[in-house]
Amino acid sequence: MSNTETNRDSDRRIAILASGRLDAFTAKTAAGVIRYRHDEVVGVIDPDHAGQDLATLIGVGKGIPIVASLGELATHRPDMLLIGVATPGGALPEAWRPVLREAIEQQMEVVNGLHTFLADDPTLSDLAAEHGARLVDVRRPPEVTGVGMARARDVPSRIVLTVGSDCNVGKKIAAIEIARELARRGRDAIFLPTGQTGVMITGRGIAIDRIISDFVSGAVEQMILDHAEHAWLIVEGQGGLFHPSYSGVTLSLMHGACPSAMVLCHQPSRQCLRHTDLPIPPLGRLVELHEAIMQPVRSSKVVGVALNCVDASDEETTDAVQASHATLGLPVTDVIRHGAGPLVDALEAHFDAS
Amino acid sequence: MSNTETNRDSDRRIAILASGRLDAFTAKTAAGVIRYRHDEVVGVIDPDHAGQDLATLIGVGKGIPIVASLGELATHRPDMLLIGVATPGGALPEAWRPVLREAIEQQMEVVNGLHTFLADDPTLSDLAAEHGARLVDVRRPPEVTGVGMARARDVPSRIVLTVGSDCNVGKKIAAIEIARELARRGRDAIFLPTGQTGVMITGRGIAIDRIISDFVSGAVEQMILDHAEHAWLIVEGQGGLFHPSYSGVTLSLMHGACPSAMVLCHQPSRQCLRHTDLPIPPLGRLVELHEAIMQPVRSSKVVGVALNCVDASDEETTDAVQASHATLGLPVTDVIRHGAGPLVDALEAHFDAS
Repeated sequence: MSNTETNRDSDRRIAILASGRLDAFTAKTAAGVIRYRHDEVVGVIDPDHAGQDLATLIGVGKGIPIVASLGELATHRPDMLLIGVATPGGALPEAWRPVLREAIEQQMEVVNGLHTFLADDPTLSDLAAEHGARLVDVRRPPEVTGVGMARARDVPSRIVLTVGSDCNVGKKIAAIEIARELARRGRDAIFLPTGQTGVMITGRGIAIDRIISDFVSGAVEQMILDHAEHAWLIVEGQGGLFHPSYSGVTLSLMHGACPSAMVLCHQPSRQCLRHTDLPIPPLGRLVELHEAIMQPVRSSKVVGVALNCVDASDEETTDAVQASHATLGLPVTDVIRHGAGPLVDALEAHFDAS
Repeated sequence: MSNTETNRDSDRRIAILASGRLDAFTAKTAAGVIRYRHDEVVGVIDPDHAGQDLATLIGVGKGIPIVASLGELATHRPDMLLIGVATPGGALPEAWRPVLREAIEQQMEVVNGLHTFLADDPTLSDLAAEHGARLVDVRRPPEVTGVGMARARDVPSRIVLTVGSDCNVGKKIAAIEIARELARRGRDAIFLPTGQTGVMITGRGIAIDRIISDFVSGAVEQMILDHAEHAWLIVEGQGGLFHPSYSGVTLSLMHGACPSAMVLCHQPSRQCLRHTDLPIPPLGRLVELHEAIMQPVRSSKVVGVALNCVDASDEETTDAVQASHATLGLPVTDVIRHGAGPLVDALEAHFDAS
């Protein structure tokens, strides 16, 4: 892909650390980075899966080798080690310290999305200082002490937010694909990440789940104001408005970003909210409630639906798209299979009319 | 008042620090503590208002002196200095350091609800260690690393949450008065605070606005589970579901506490959400949306309305109560003027029927 939408400073040679955890679920960060920075990734480190086919394991990464150690990637001269998997409670496994030390000693930049910060580890930070290596903790919250005041309403940009029927249904990918499609059409569109994977993909944005709750909407608002020079701001959604774990983060993001348009993301195979026995409400009800809860802050419409059919056949996907369209009367697409075109058509029509 | 609902260990002799900020708005914490710990408060320190009548300034505190310095309260032998006002950004004003040092040197307990923590200040914490004084930062978040999973649904207690049309409309007072009325009727009811003032009043609960956003619902859920031995849990609401600054905290609280019943709090004179130009939606719409956003997690009803008529005459209050009742068909009361009886009647009927 081009770097138009991601605005990274320069291309890197990235080794992704994923020891023992290469599956589509815990390697969500790895998969996201590989999907959008494929040409920069020189290899994935996981002794348990060395030699296996990456695309088979996590759905993306065709041709990228899985190796047992950082040393095996030496001929590629990697300059960034990126932690690409989640760990229980966000802790740093002791078993990872040798490879982290090795990377630091080779002056590689180490990029970490865990809740545990590398720069707060005295051993690692001393070593990094000694070797002039950079430690980047993407979840470290920005210094925000202001609350949101719906100032994003005053920005002339067209603000779009992806929202979801649940967490982990494709809000990030939908936002990126919408931004890319807009860029293809010559629009000045920028993707604004709000989670660690998006930050790792683009090098900008904030991981909002780590911010003190009182300041989440303020941090999102500041991010919007900071990018107001762009015509289109496509903001990555988080969590889900009805998920008992994440609903507060979702609502802070909605009221902080003040989108005039939302795109609802959903995985048709999902019946219950993730890790719970709570049924996901019908899509029509979700559209209605997302609009209702935005209304007092800013009038906002759900203009289309992005279905995540990663676990469905092509035929099932076409059926699901048609069924949702028939129920809702909105444009519906699987952005990976069919592209974001229908959503961008709807977004352009929405903003042109308003 | 009796300590039945507050369960404090013992009575204290409290000096409240409110320098330069004695008005009903910024002295919200002072007012809350004075309302419910009146007999323990020996004086309020504010050189700008020394000698004036406290009740005139903040609506409560008849007979409590306002003095210019801690020294003037010496004959009362105060053993607690409580910071009773908010500051811009929650910072600690430099001008307060002398009185804090004085209190610490007198081995007083210093209770602080600011976002800035006294115990993290090396000078003050060293001084406290030297003199054996206790520094209590009530906003310091609990060590929570678990997300909410709607486990509060499994608790047999009758869970009630006060919610609001806006922030600062009387959710804390409504919750306390409901708990007190239940106690008067012989019920085993406990008030669970979620903000610094409530924590200062009772010595339990958590200031949820200071918690990392991902963990707010989990922290609330844990608080519910920790008090499940009580028949009634009356949870203090926070923020407002449509206030762009605080809505995320509010929703985390709703989905963390999983109330089966809610009481909607409102100040009839309030037209716009605080500090904004955003109109407050009509009460009927607020009832509908609070119930709708709880529904996917737990079926919950708004069973009554608590009007805060602090700025209205008795006649205006009666009119406002009757008007809201006529519009909504729900019990409505001003808990300060008319008591929480109608709300408790409605709550008992609601739970008896379910």
